[in-house]
Amino acid sequence: MKRVLVTGASGFIGRQCIAPLRARGFDVHAIAHHAATGPGAGPEERSGARQGNQQVRHAGPAGAASEDRRGMDNVTWHRCDLLTEDVTPIVHAVAPTHLLHLAWYAVPGKYWTSRENLRWVRASLVLYDAFVASGGTRVVMAGSCAEYDWSGGVCRERDTPLAPRTYYGQCKRALGELILADATHAGVSAAWARFFFLFGPHEYRERLIASVIRALLNGETAKCSPGLQRRDFLHVTDAAAAAIALLDSDVQGAINIGAGAAISVRELVEKAAQIIGTGAVAFGALPADPDPLVVADATRLHDEVGYTAASDLDERLRSTIAWWRDQG
Amino acid sequence: MKRVLVTGASGFIGRQCIAPLRARGFDVHAIAHHAATGPGAGPEERSGARQGNQQVRHAGPAGAASEDRRGMDNVTWHRCDLLTEDVTPIVHAVAPTHLLHLAWYAVPGKYWTSRENLRWVRASLVLYDAFVASGGTRVVMAGSCAEYDWSGGVCRERDTPLAPRTYYGQCKRALGELILADATHAGVSAAWARFFFLFGPHEYRERLIASVIRALLNGETAKCSPGLQRRDFLHVTDAAAAAIALLDSDVQGAINIGAGAAISVRELVEKAAQIIGTGAVAFGALPADPDPLVVADATRLHDEVGYTAASDLDERLRSTIAWWRDQG
Repeated sequence: MKRVLVTGASGFIGRQCIAPLRARGFDVHAIAHHAATGPGAGPEERSGARQGNQQVRHAGPAGAASEDRRGMDNVTWHRCDLLTEDVTPIVHAVAPTHLLHLAWYAVPGKYWTSRENLRWVRASLVLYDAFVASGGTRVVMAGSCAEYDWSGGVCRERDTPLAPRTYYGQCKRALGELILADATHAGVSAAWARFFFLFGPHEYRERLIASVIRALLNGETAKCSPGLQRRDFLHVTDAAAAAIALLDSDVQGAINIGAGAAISVRELVEKAAQIIGTGAVAFGALPADPDPLVVADATRLHDEVGYTAASDLDERLRSTIAWWRDQG
Repeated sequence: MKRVLVTGASGFIGRQCIAPLRARGFDVHAIAHHAATGPGAGPEERSGARQGNQQVRHAGPAGAASEDRRGMDNVTWHRCDLLTEDVTPIVHAVAPTHLLHLAWYAVPGKYWTSRENLRWVRASLVLYDAFVASGGTRVVMAGSCAEYDWSGGVCRERDTPLAPRTYYGQCKRALGELILADATHAGVSAAWARFFFLFGPHEYRERLIASVIRALLNGETAKCSPGLQRRDFLHVTDAAAAAIALLDSDVQGAINIGAGAAISVRELVEKAAQIIGTGAVAFGALPADPDPLVVADATRLHDEVGYTAASDLDERLRSTIAWWRDQG
């Protein structure tokens, strides 16, 4: 029996992981800190269900709208604040075979430099240590493309230097290197999933794609940089499916979770404007981004994990816009 | 009033730090886990006094021979196992202005690959966090030359790539980068002291210089590599004095603690053999070391910290041999 413990399970990425986990036959346990905050909940967020008891089977995170609970059933929730409480007893009680650690501090505008990053490094080490001690065998944790030196454009796991420019990137890199190095000594199979640029439902509304879509839907003028920078954009459900394929494999080390193709921010925003048909975009109203290209080499994800996103970007953008429209 | 909290204070480096700390007017508090293990106690070791109570002023570590207690008086010892107990209440009670964190796992032959390294990363983050929260302003932690890429020979803080080959080196590098990055956000002055090759009293007896000296003193044949590799050897009292000069400064970032000059292992061992006059050395009985040169660029230590070791290597070797002879 495969039993997975998921952190950040009601966050931006995490909530999309439940369905593919169930589809692959995992018994899903999740750590939840507090009630889900709804569509504003951001990537890798440490939210979850506030339950009176520590373990509630078949209960989704409190406060989630019914349409957001698809796939969130058949999850056993465990209440714990990873930053201030010792998760060890829960890990030992669950005795998971697999660990998927997505929880992190991700408040837009703050997470690049916040000291919360260091607290998450520490909490992640405690979680990992408990997982190993309880007999776990396979772990996947969330890294970031922010760990890479972006000057070369294409980011390859095995030869692009790591040179994070932000404290967030530094903390992710340090944790990733520690976990991957330790796993070889601990006899645990470990992968470090470096997520690229994600968009989709439940994105923090202040973030680029979400904020542009919302402005356009409201008939407003969305402020953008010139938008010439090209980025590897991937829909969050594809990213989640890739992460679960990775978790369910024995592929080890750092693995990029990206489309393997780049599109300019300008082109993506123009696609959104065309679909929405209201509002306007002021390109150049915000400063230009200094990095012309950041794209994942997705060779490991494709060849070793065997994952290729099935759907195209236009369709994913369309469904994301529809989701934001439904938020009213 | 400068009040320092020292970890590893009865270890190889730490025990040599007490006298220079007192000389510079520090009120010295030390974290101690268990009774000092005597001359076999190794570098950055987490040993100390086992005291029935948590705070004992003017008491050296239990079990230390009287001649080893010079300078260990006027220290306030606090009992805590940093790996299994929460040090936070002690840190808040002491409210140190300065933190000198030397404690680490250092058992010869094991510390390069032990999973204890990861536990020390975690414990160090807890300690650091408590220090910052309690209002501390200046921190120095022990790094290692094992963090550097050794292929270039000369190790410079600002331009030699970090490429640790061992798990120990990886953990030290990760912790150093985390602390230095966080300190800028936390408003704390931080330095990361990268120690090179140390020798002197209380070295682990299995380590190179100690084991050669002991074999020669016993009239035995000391087994060595061909010994052609050149290394930056520094006496531990000089290293400790340099670390305390660094602590008492406001120099930030990574700082090499080394002599800034290299000598071949063969030459150093031959010097020892000449001084001792008994036994023999079998050069080539052990495999050759693949790295021809590892030497600190000591420019930052000299120019910014203002520290230059006063004594010469021969004299330091002589006194070290005398100390080992006294151990019988």
